Amino acid sequence: MSEKKPITLTDGVAPGGSRRSGLDVIRGMIDGGMTSTMATTMDCRVIEAESGKAVIRAVPNEGFLNLHGTVHGGWAATVLDTALGCAVVTTLDAGQGTATVELSTRFIRPIFPGSGPVLATGTVVNRGRRLVVAEGRIVSEKDGKLLAQATGTWTVLEAERG
Amino acid sequence: MSEKKPITLTDGVAPGGSRRSGLDVIRGMIDGGMTSTMATTMDCRVIEAESGKAVIRAVPNEGFLNLHGTVHGGWAATVLDTALGCAVVTTLDAGQGTATVELSTRFIRPIFPGSGPVLATGTVVNRGRRLVVAEGRIVSEKDGKLLAQATGTWTVLEAERG
Amino acid sequence: MSEKKPITLTDGVAPGGSRRSGLDVIRGMIDGGMTSTMATTMDCRVIEAESGKAVIRAVPNEGFLNLHGTVHGGWAATVLDTALGCAVVTTLDAGQGTATVELSTRFIRPIFPGSGPVLATGTVVNRGRRLVVAEGRIVSEKDGKLLAQATGTWTVLEAERG
Amino acid sequence: MSEKKPITLTDGVAPGGSRRSGLDVIRGMIDGGMTSTMATTMDCRVIEAESGKAVIRAVPNEGFLNLHGTVHGGWAATVLDTALGCAVVTTLDAGQGTATVELSTRFIRPIFPGSGPVLATGTVVNRGRRLVVAEGRIVSEKDGKLLAQATGTWTVLEAERG
Repeated sequence: MSEKKPITLTDGVAPGGSRRSGLDVIRGMIDGGMTSTMATTMDCRVIEAESGKAVIRAVPNEGFLNLHGTVHGGWAATVLDTALGCAVVTTLDAGQGTATVELSTRFIRPIFPGSGPVLATGTVVNRGRRLVVAEGRIVSEKDGKLLAQATGTWTVLEAERG
Repeated sequence: MSEKKPITLTDGVAPGGSRRSGLDVIRGMIDGGMTSTMATTMDCRVIEAESGKAVIRAVPNEGFLNLHGTVHGGWAATVLDTALGCAVVTTLDAGQGTATVELSTRFIRPIFPGSGPVLATGTVVNRGRRLVVAEGRIVSEKDGKLLAQATGTWTVLEAERG
Repeated sequence: MSEKKPITLTDGVAPGGSRRSGLDVIRGMIDGGMTSTMATTMDCRVIEAESGKAVIRAVPNEGFLNLHGTVHGGWAATVLDTALGCAVVTTLDAGQGTATVELSTRFIRPIFPGSGPVLATGTVVNRGRRLVVAEGRIVSEKDGKLLAQATGTWTVLEAERG
Repeated sequence: MSEKKPITLTDGVAPGGSRRSGLDVIRGMIDGGMTSTMATTMDCRVIEAESGKAVIRAVPNEGFLNLHGTVHGGWAATVLDTALGCAVVTTLDAGQGTATVELSTRFIRPIFPGSGPVLATGTVVNRGRRLVVAEGRIVSEKDGKLLAQATGTWTVLEAERG
């Protein structure tokens, strides 16, 4: 389903040898066009990043529909988890990784396969030593209308813990 | 990405002409093998349903990985949204539809592409006139280990509202 | 526990005869010092309001402690539910009421009885016809440190529905 | 507002010298009638506990009303946070403490001051090494009707971390 090899832990996002900070890793993804296989499957990619913030562009298509003919809530949840998760990664030191603890998503307007691209912005609300809270939203690229919103918690994994 | 035509509103899950109850629609999906395109993309399908409950079987694969090489949280969120949403649909009268208002997911153990199939059970906690609360969890088919948990709220849409 | 009579539905916040908008009701509370009994019990009150936004000031005390000697999470949840709920009320027309559907709270730093007053700001993220999404946070009045965060969903009740 | 001295960290629920397990501490509360000041303020107390589970009985009164004359959502959130939190405490070893990371509450039916006592049951869904997921619900003692539901995440604090 994807021709790109996934970036793995040992490539530097997480524990196991990276000498790059999380922000460097995300910037490398933007510049180098690298991505995860899920991002490819769901047609989303990081387009901007700074410390504590990331922007994702994603394009809904006919492969993401629910029974009602609208885009599945799981697609929006995936895009938001990606945006917020990337924002969290930008705050990691070299050698740290992260995992989503919980994600709470609110679906505000239906997304249609012909709605066109969306932009998802993730922002870190608080960077604790072990837990990070982030929030974000999806808007239509065309008219800026708010489509979905999410808030969640991430855990910081240290290299020695794997 | 999918060769199956999605079931749309007018096919009976929601407003617009169906004379079948939500439970009949879900049972038809189990018997007839019909599904949504998102379910095909994410490799999940309904395998059991009764009033207020639905069970989904889903298979993680290499196309669903995050940057860390584990299965993306968005895949688990999609599987749970599907399981809980199908449980909600089983409580709908003919002519009613539904949409997810909010979904809160907790990621308990990492899922790996080689972890094998998972089972997601959705259960309706309360069926109000306009709002429905449902909860559920994903366990490994192999050993029953708990992988993720979700609770959410759905709105009931009446035919005349579209 | 409280000497103030609660403002009830028939006083204008909700269905049943009010000719005042939600914003007027909240402004009346600020000017007139009216409040709910829960706000008195929990020592919190509205200090600012505009359309789609409300600010609450609350003072933690020795009556709100959990087993660990810090302020109970339920106090922060109450203050946030009040702040977000008041923000939602400011968007209501005369004759409309509201009720919390769900509230998701994140506890970021411990609050101590001697921490001093906190400010909770609630902001409406989206005002739908039947559902409203709002978010907000609690910060220390003294140093602005983020203490807790919440997002939630409210339903709009029409007078004729009670 | 309360005449009972709160049990503090050093009394054994959390880091700092206790040689009792969390379950012993909760059982001591049931037998000895000890409680936190917030539980007194909100009129709730633990009545049953076993490993991974706790039951709270709480009585709504006129001091807990919102602007609409019904019981404030913050009261239900407090009762649920207490029930789930006590369930989490029953899984702690001597010397461990806990704090709520996040709590997601759904308000299903309005609670009235004359509704009579409620029972809140908290159950641990998963006890990880550092994070615990718990869920629970509030029902009317009189007729068993479901009033509210919550799910949340707790962190395990070790004695040496304070």
